[in-house]
Amino acid sequence: MFYLIGLGLGDAKDITVKGLEIVKKCDKVLLEGYTSILTVGKEVLEEYYGRPLIIADRELCEGAIDEILLEAKDSEVALLVVGDPLGATTHTDMLLRAKQFGVQTQIVHNASIMNAVSCCGLQLYNFGETVSIPYWTEKWKPDSFFDKIVGNFSRNLHTLCLLDIKVKEPTEDSLTKKVRQYMDPKFMSVKEAANQLVQIIENNPDKGINKSSTAIGLSRVGASDQRIAVMTLDAMQSFDLGPPLHSLVIPAPNLHPLELDYLAQFNQSGS
Amino acid sequence: MFYLIGLGLGDAKDITVKGLEIVKKCDKVLLEGYTSILTVGKEVLEEYYGRPLIIADRELCEGAIDEILLEAKDSEVALLVVGDPLGATTHTDMLLRAKQFGVQTQIVHNASIMNAVSCCGLQLYNFGETVSIPYWTEKWKPDSFFDKIVGNFSRNLHTLCLLDIKVKEPTEDSLTKKVRQYMDPKFMSVKEAANQLVQIIENNPDKGINKSSTAIGLSRVGASDQRIAVMTLDAMQSFDLGPPLHSLVIPAPNLHPLELDYLAQFNQSGS
Repeated sequence: MFYLIGLGLGDAKDITVKGLEIVKKCDKVLLEGYTSILTVGKEVLEEYYGRPLIIADRELCEGAIDEILLEAKDSEVALLVVGDPLGATTHTDMLLRAKQFGVQTQIVHNASIMNAVSCCGLQLYNFGETVSIPYWTEKWKPDSFFDKIVGNFSRNLHTLCLLDIKVKEPTEDSLTKKVRQYMDPKFMSVKEAANQLVQIIENNPDKGINKSSTAIGLSRVGASDQRIAVMTLDAMQSFDLGPPLHSLVIPAPNLHPLELDYLAQFNQSGS
Repeated sequence: MFYLIGLGLGDAKDITVKGLEIVKKCDKVLLEGYTSILTVGKEVLEEYYGRPLIIADRELCEGAIDEILLEAKDSEVALLVVGDPLGATTHTDMLLRAKQFGVQTQIVHNASIMNAVSCCGLQLYNFGETVSIPYWTEKWKPDSFFDKIVGNFSRNLHTLCLLDIKVKEPTEDSLTKKVRQYMDPKFMSVKEAANQLVQIIENNPDKGINKSSTAIGLSRVGASDQRIAVMTLDAMQSFDLGPPLHSLVIPAPNLHPLELDYLAQFNQSGS
């Protein structure tokens, strides 16, 4: 049996009772370590579960997963995923491969940023499609996500922006070499995301969203030190929301009175 | 302290470890019983938690909540909610009132249909806004949700349709009387939802969605007897997907190859 188990968003105790029972009985437990992070690391989880975990990086999840799945034919193997296990395409693909191999699968759902974002007071059914904001490089500055934000905004819908994460990414130089070298892990902050958005806005001034539009920054959603801050996109460019992970929300232009009341408690603009 | 604790979607063991610890230490624990249901009832939860639960119906949650919140000023009170606790407006409102009363609050997130719907293989970031399909009556046949489905469809986005639930709803006759009488609980099936949708389509033939459009029915998501069925909207009108809860998805017209592959395993149309 191959289990995909969601860990939720905060710490070791955000796993469900069902998930924990499976972790304790499995022959092998892998921890997916490159699409998201908890506020605690591998060691804390190992101590809490009372068993060793194997870090599953991108190379393993996308390259060597067949081996793991074949192992799960005759033993109990679990892959732990921060948030809900079906948030990323990779995991859907794993389930399809498992089926091809005749391996039984079970999914244990959990909270993900896709629903926990409601902690800022915006109603989930008023969100349009979700976008991802990637780190720009000197030469590569994609901005197609902006049209999606504008599309949601023009239909009076909120946009959840997932911010880029780089964990165990090979350096560009080492891609063509035998021995891979890896970049230090980095996690996009709301400050960096707002800065990229403002640059796009300056090149696209007539799309309805401007530097004075409201932005909502969220950090460490679901953890005890979770923070939410509401201000203009312009101000967000220089606002430090503390340690990762961060997410950014561009709310719809016209909010429900309850949404306005709830957001007001996080207002940082001094008005 | 006032806790809002998500129970997830399946049975008693879908609560998180953090949530369970809070339930065990609280002075009073209420179970919200009208916006959604688990596959197990109050008695099973009481046995699993080892403590009594008080059913919180709509009248209590919307009318008498202030009393409960004031109690939470000097004691530990938890409200358990199926799915994630912030899925419904009522609970956001409770948190605002708690703040007014100076009552500390804590939210324990969990899976909800808003993210667990990914179990059908459609990618969450390709969903547009969520709609609710209400039970029609003889005289009241609202159809504004259809425009939202069409809006998502025309932008190549999926739509999650939440289906109506009637639990402890007063009968129309008794609304003006001293003693309220209540309807039997009912839960809209994908069959009923498809039937209402087809009626709307017949009056709106040129919106891109028709009787041959694909529909995905989901029942008991997150439970061990979860079912997913893919067919035309027309066929869905006579398809029995078993016991509640049900949800319906209208997928975007052009799917990602991985989404197509994943959906294929649930195809009921014989093609």
